[in-house]
Amino acid sequence: MSAESFLKDFHHVATIGATANHGVDRQAATAEDARTRAWFAGFAADRGWEVRVDGIGNMFALLTWRPGAPFVLIGSHLDSQPLGGRFDGAYGVIAALHAAQRVDRRILESGMLPPFNLAVVNWFNEEGGRFAPSIMGSSVFAGLMDQEKMLDVADLQGTTVRQALEGIGYLGTDERPEPVSYAEIHIEQGRILEREGLRLGAVESSWYTQKLDIEVLGEQSHTGATAMADRHDALVAASKVVLMVHDVTKDFEEEALVSSVGQLTLEPNSPIVVARRVHLVADLRSGSPEIVQAARDKLLKDIAALAKEHDIRINVRDFDIRPVQHFPEAGIELTEKVAANLGLGVRRIRTMAGHDSVAMNRIVPALMMFIPSVDGVSHCEREFSTDADMVAGVDALTEVALELVNGALAASGRKD
Amino acid sequence: MSAESFLKDFHHVATIGATANHGVDRQAATAEDARTRAWFAGFAADRGWEVRVDGIGNMFALLTWRPGAPFVLIGSHLDSQPLGGRFDGAYGVIAALHAAQRVDRRILESGMLPPFNLAVVNWFNEEGGRFAPSIMGSSVFAGLMDQEKMLDVADLQGTTVRQALEGIGYLGTDERPEPVSYAEIHIEQGRILEREGLRLGAVESSWYTQKLDIEVLGEQSHTGATAMADRHDALVAASKVVLMVHDVTKDFEEEALVSSVGQLTLEPNSPIVVARRVHLVADLRSGSPEIVQAARDKLLKDIAALAKEHDIRINVRDFDIRPVQHFPEAGIELTEKVAANLGLGVRRIRTMAGHDSVAMNRIVPALMMFIPSVDGVSHCEREFSTDADMVAGVDALTEVALELVNGALAASGRKD
Repeated sequence: MSAESFLKDFHHVATIGATANHGVDRQAATAEDARTRAWFAGFAADRGWEVRVDGIGNMFALLTWRPGAPFVLIGSHLDSQPLGGRFDGAYGVIAALHAAQRVDRRILESGMLPPFNLAVVNWFNEEGGRFAPSIMGSSVFAGLMDQEKMLDVADLQGTTVRQALEGIGYLGTDERPEPVSYAEIHIEQGRILEREGLRLGAVESSWYTQKLDIEVLGEQSHTGATAMADRHDALVAASKVVLMVHDVTKDFEEEALVSSVGQLTLEPNSPIVVARRVHLVADLRSGSPEIVQAARDKLLKDIAALAKEHDIRINVRDFDIRPVQHFPEAGIELTEKVAANLGLGVRRIRTMAGHDSVAMNRIVPALMMFIPSVDGVSHCEREFSTDADMVAGVDALTEVALELVNGALAASGRKD
Repeated sequence: MSAESFLKDFHHVATIGATANHGVDRQAATAEDARTRAWFAGFAADRGWEVRVDGIGNMFALLTWRPGAPFVLIGSHLDSQPLGGRFDGAYGVIAALHAAQRVDRRILESGMLPPFNLAVVNWFNEEGGRFAPSIMGSSVFAGLMDQEKMLDVADLQGTTVRQALEGIGYLGTDERPEPVSYAEIHIEQGRILEREGLRLGAVESSWYTQKLDIEVLGEQSHTGATAMADRHDALVAASKVVLMVHDVTKDFEEEALVSSVGQLTLEPNSPIVVARRVHLVADLRSGSPEIVQAARDKLLKDIAALAKEHDIRINVRDFDIRPVQHFPEAGIELTEKVAANLGLGVRRIRTMAGHDSVAMNRIVPALMMFIPSVDGVSHCEREFSTDADMVAGVDALTEVALELVNGALAASGRKD
């Protein structure tokens, strides 16, 4: 019955900003994002839960049993990539709303007030597709990013976070709930659980990640009238950089490093003008900081040689460096215990993707769980997880949240 | 005295839409384009010349000595590339206005009415940087492109030619002057005249050109969570296409073929998403149609093999094919005669770039002259020609225009 009610809500939210091929397009602070936010607020209001919106657009639905006590936070994000999947983020928020409802019922049935309150959170701009960097809302909450600086970040059209949040009516001023611990459930976005036939992953650490901001500066000229030897084509050099970023993974063990260029813009981008400037962003990730560092150093060396060879300038800048984060052992063991009680196969796993839980783990003990992703694909319309796996995850999150409001993990420190 | 007056006007127009590094940014049907148009109209109105604007935004300033007789057209274009040079196009229009003024004076002094009238033309959207294809206004005038179709062409922001021309008040309804011949003077945009120390080029033919519209279709996925082996990265494949287009020139004699990719757009263009789709435009040019054909065939074969290797789809479509055009021998000889009379060194030359004269040559005998470009660079802020070379060119155009209104070239057919 409550599984049905969860599935009904999940599949309803997937219609908001739905795309032709079963994905969603709900980038941060767009009209589509506003519609999922209104749905979230309505779910809470229907149950008498207080809704708060903070100064970076994070939304909280509060279940307060013990006024004045701090909050266990559970949740994820409702924003998506452009033409993204309908599971990434949204699953975790909707699972958290339903888990909170069940926890509330269990507490009322037991008659025993827990030491902590519970808040469901929808973090602002986890994806970073429109406004970089990603994981923005939870990072501001955790004090890892400066709120004023983030409000000034602009998208490719020049709209700032502040303007976009104001535009949809979600630039809030509410006080943030004081957190005591954090739990999040998410799709794996990889194929390890599927391969091993397991229902649940207990995330033990995040990968080391960093980005490189690369600016290739050639010289604008006429594509027809300029002799090949006289050109300083920024796109030809940038194409070699893209291939270097791709091929650097081959210097390391298989699957030890992933890298890619996902963003690239050309100036002036005219069919009959040789490009003056190409700006691109490379993304490097590994379980090992040493591997990322070695790949980054090799790229810098190769790019410098390339610039010399092409007689153009290439500026490279490190940014968005995110160290390996270890989640507390007590939380991993809690996930394993809950999985065993529910009869769900579980394993420890690492996350290559960034998550709000990684930011939250910097300030309170955090726990992260994965459910399987079919074919391991994500950030695309084809992303898929089964109803059965989603429902099992809600069950697990419910048990975890119940333990957390009753004090589990509250005493655990984080390990780096 | 009249050289000074020309230079004053030329350097004044260069301030309209001026950029930081001595270039101009006056893309077709922008506010900056409108300001040069107003200047053009003012120059004509001050001299009592009738101004007409046709249905694709071409502007004509008419000097009518013999009502009802057809017109010799002289001119070029005032629009520029984004961050373009201040000489490309604008030189030819301003030179034509001053040449027309001098021709008018010479005719009044001689007291002999010529058989033909004279019109100075500012063609719409020669550059094609904002609205593709290039050479739009003169091609519509010549009946080579359909006016209604061209009015519906949109820029990357979705604004159509119709909307943009209406927006600046230059979607005209005036009757077009009936042409009898055409002359244009332009900067070379190459370094042949400079290398040989000559002041004038008599253009004998245009290069064969064609474009390839290339769409690379991969699969969108997460840059962090997706294993390298599971990706179908459209940008990695597109980068190889860019290098193929660049390297294909090496299969032919030096300077026999030029090729490039000047426009490339990425979807979704998010730093942490592997690209789903890359759209790019390749440009191939040669004096020989066979060389372009051979390069195109090789690219199609190599791109098909690349698509197979990457397990993605790449769609390639030929467009904007422009055959070699020969200018009439009589016009080339007229340029040579005028140069000899003025004591200017001259040589026959071919143009790699497209020009309005190439379109006009399809319907009336056309004549094209070049003045030297320093370092051969064009379509960039560093583009440069000397005052002395510009002034010599105005002298040459004056003599040519005087011959044309008196009947030279009117009987010549075009040669293909």
